[in-house]
Amino acid sequence: TLPQLRRQSLKQNQSQPQSQDQDGQNHCLAFSKQHMVQDCSIPAQSLKYWLAASFCLNALCLSILLGFSRPGRPSNWNRHGAIEDRGHLFANGAGQGHLGLHNPHCSGQGHFEGGVVNGGQCRCYSCFTGSTCSELASDCTVNFDHGDPKMFETYWSSNQDAVSTVILGGDRMSYFSFTDGICWFLEPSLASEVKLMHKMVGNAVTDGYHIVVGTGSSQLISAALYALSSSAHQTPVDVVSAAPFYSSYPPMTDFLKSQLHRWAGDALSYEWEPQNMYVELVTSPGNPDGMVHSAVVNGTGPVVYDLAYYWPHYTPITFAADYDIMLFTVSKTTGHAGTRIGWALVRSAEVAKRMTKYIELSTIGVSKDSQFRASQILKAIRMSYPHAEEMKMGGPYNARQMGLFDFGYQQMELRWEQMRHTIRDNACFSLETFPSEFCKFFGKATMPHPAFAWLHCEKDEDCHSAFKANGILTRSGTYFGSSPKYVRISMVDHDKVPR
Amino acid sequence: TLPQLRRQSLKQNQSQPQSQDQDGQNHCLAFSKQHMVQDCSIPAQSLKYWLAASFCLNALCLSILLGFSRPGRPSNWNRHGAIEDRGHLFANGAGQGHLGLHNPHCSGQGHFEGGVVNGGQCRCYSCFTGSTCSELASDCTVNFDHGDPKMFETYWSSNQDAVSTVILGGDRMSYFSFTDGICWFLEPSLASEVKLMHKMVGNAVTDGYHIVVGTGSSQLISAALYALSSSAHQTPVDVVSAAPFYSSYPPMTDFLKSQLHRWAGDALSYEWEPQNMYVELVTSPGNPDGMVHSAVVNGTGPVVYDLAYYWPHYTPITFAADYDIMLFTVSKTTGHAGTRIGWALVRSAEVAKRMTKYIELSTIGVSKDSQFRASQILKAIRMSYPHAEEMKMGGPYNARQMGLFDFGYQQMELRWEQMRHTIRDNACFSLETFPSEFCKFFGKATMPHPAFAWLHCEKDEDCHSAFKANGILTRSGTYFGSSPKYVRISMVDHDKVPR
Repeated sequence: TLPQLRRQSLKQNQSQPQSQDQDGQNHCLAFSKQHMVQDCSIPAQSLKYWLAASFCLNALCLSILLGFSRPGRPSNWNRHGAIEDRGHLFANGAGQGHLGLHNPHCSGQGHFEGGVVNGGQCRCYSCFTGSTCSELASDCTVNFDHGDPKMFETYWSSNQDAVSTVILGGDRMSYFSFTDGICWFLEPSLASEVKLMHKMVGNAVTDGYHIVVGTGSSQLISAALYALSSSAHQTPVDVVSAAPFYSSYPPMTDFLKSQLHRWAGDALSYEWEPQNMYVELVTSPGNPDGMVHSAVVNGTGPVVYDLAYYWPHYTPITFAADYDIMLFTVSKTTGHAGTRIGWALVRSAEVAKRMTKYIELSTIGVSKDSQFRASQILKAIRMSYPHAEEMKMGGPYNARQMGLFDFGYQQMELRWEQMRHTIRDNACFSLETFPSEFCKFFGKATMPHPAFAWLHCEKDEDCHSAFKANGILTRSGTYFGSSPKYVRISMVDHDKVPR
Repeated sequence: TLPQLRRQSLKQNQSQPQSQDQDGQNHCLAFSKQHMVQDCSIPAQSLKYWLAASFCLNALCLSILLGFSRPGRPSNWNRHGAIEDRGHLFANGAGQGHLGLHNPHCSGQGHFEGGVVNGGQCRCYSCFTGSTCSELASDCTVNFDHGDPKMFETYWSSNQDAVSTVILGGDRMSYFSFTDGICWFLEPSLASEVKLMHKMVGNAVTDGYHIVVGTGSSQLISAALYALSSSAHQTPVDVVSAAPFYSSYPPMTDFLKSQLHRWAGDALSYEWEPQNMYVELVTSPGNPDGMVHSAVVNGTGPVVYDLAYYWPHYTPITFAADYDIMLFTVSKTTGHAGTRIGWALVRSAEVAKRMTKYIELSTIGVSKDSQFRASQILKAIRMSYPHAEEMKMGGPYNARQMGLFDFGYQQMELRWEQMRHTIRDNACFSLETFPSEFCKFFGKATMPHPAFAWLHCEKDEDCHSAFKANGILTRSGTYFGSSPKYVRISMVDHDKVPR
């Protein structure tokens, strides 16, 4: 389930010394022991354990809180937490030389948005408040639970005009789009840009595929489950995914108590019998673990590939995927989660028809405004790589501005460097390592930089609670069919957080 | 279910004499008899019956095909079916003096839409084709089946700039909206305009209600069913609605084979027992019948009021509705079906929370772009009635342009006049009559002009097939839990159709 933004006091953390933990192992152990006692009243003699545990977690906490700043870079934080650099308020992080300013009305700690209310307003980043986002919220927890991809706001704010979408009063009023395809509500401009984008990036084959647009890829997952189960001879169909799986798969499958399908858990332990109908969901690269995955069930059932993160800023593009059903979303590709646009590439016309039927019955199509905006955004990305072919061959290219994937790659690289730097000598936590591979899009070897860190607490049994007690919200491994010793930490939030 | 646009040959009709039927009763009878034989091969001796039947239906068919033109107005149709008037191509129908031109690039037979494909394109009305919509489609059926509200295109096309929506690259990227309400993805600007609109029109109370936004009101119907059944002590919950009910209610309730709820049919024949849990759906004014309705089940179950058509262009506003759950949609209010925005006014916080949860799990919110556009459109309507209070008291008002509800009322009045004129002396068909009532918004007595005509074939047993055989698609009464002697005919399509 997607969490609400919860705010809790951070004051106690801020009052503690901000130093790197030098003795992580013992502190963690102490914390772990204390944690296992499960005593809500803290006896005086155990306070030292709590303090020690708090030190341990503050090491990570404060490194993150201080922002994913480039190591070694002098940071001149002003009293509101914004970096002052040559008189300007810059967004912290990579690409700031290329990508300009936040609107100064929002103190660099929020995003100015035009609108009908008083001509626009500041939308403050979490932990900032006030009409100009200049104030620090008094009760605040840093939220790394959800995967809201705010990281990209800096990029798009600096390219406002180039990608502004203008919709006139009489535009796109009909339920119907003028398309010859199966999906009668798919805007032709979006279909066209989706194909061009996949061709440029080389991450998926589109020839011979039907495109079905959805209100985010969430709706497409439900649509695919409907399509693959409503035609099954025997229902309910078992829905499985290898743990750690995307935490929304179980509730999405079961919340309506459909008799078409039921959540059957971890695909790795699913024992298929020929008489059993099943659908396997594969997220690759994985959410939460960032690994490249394939189907694991030794059976003949259909597989839905959720390729939301198969883009060059997250992972090397090593081949053009050509699975039967592939899902993508604008949200993770460009950061426009609010547009709620996803698309499916579907080989079978029959499956595409049934997916279309699902969307017809649940929402009578998909917002035309957002489809149009998504097509404009995809086009803008494409136009920033005018020499994509040249780039693939390792040659020089001269885009007028940095392309989104380069920006995203630099941001993610910086954040992962910082995260690994924090973890490196710390016995409390561990992270998976990823090998570099040759990325066909960038034309060189790149490192995977997943959208989430799948962090393992080496000592604490309940990693989520340990973080939460220190003012950081994460998502517990239990939601992903995994151990509570794991947490998922979002790496795609915006890059301005308070200290 | 929502139909696909189907095209069939109209040629045979066009080759027949276009005259008013003078002997409808006998012809209809003959047609009816022939129809009951159900013989696919037509013997030579029965051809005369077919011809006679065809005459009968052509009377209605051609009246409609010739457009909802003002009686007595000289119509100078050019060879492509567009009206030429002082050198300009005008949209046929009411309000053309106030509301300007279609883009001449589309021959007045389509709508020009800017976009990424070659800077824009003509979207031709059905039965027209070609890059400038100047050609008549060779195989064409007039489609009055679905309720695509294209009638309003003329209005909005003439107000393009005043209601253009501009969305910058970095706007509204997050999943979250900055709202204090229960519905965490509701844009504050939309919430504000919804309240102001209801206050101005006087059709619903908003004080003390929670607003939940949906991807069209379809998603809100499903959300309400989930909210009211997932909390029930006993499931599945029976879902009922008085026939003739909206044709999408049964498939929307049952297509996922949910164990939370099941379609239980006509509310009028539903025998409630205290141990039975049920939800009653009421559409008022009714789709398809246009009548004002209330709950009919003699029980204590919750009632969902779908008030999509409770706006002054369709029906007199006689009171401010204050039901527990009320659904509205931009689609029927302003004609922007493609934006897919609906809203629910919900008295209970618990129900609003569960509806929000449904939308979170099915689509993780609702397009921010469309919410913003919808708020702009609602605001534009509001601004066209600067003296709404004055108008309610019967006084003069001086808006700079005709308000949407006035435009809509005039359009609908014209179409209903034409429809009733066609039916008046024809024994083949009958229509319900509606009494005029005092409309609090217009400050005077107005007539109901429903979005659909609920036509009864007096003689033909299968009214839908009779129309279909004559090149007109309607929706059969059977879809509405009613007799096949009824059909629903959309009255809200655009006003340019070929002869």
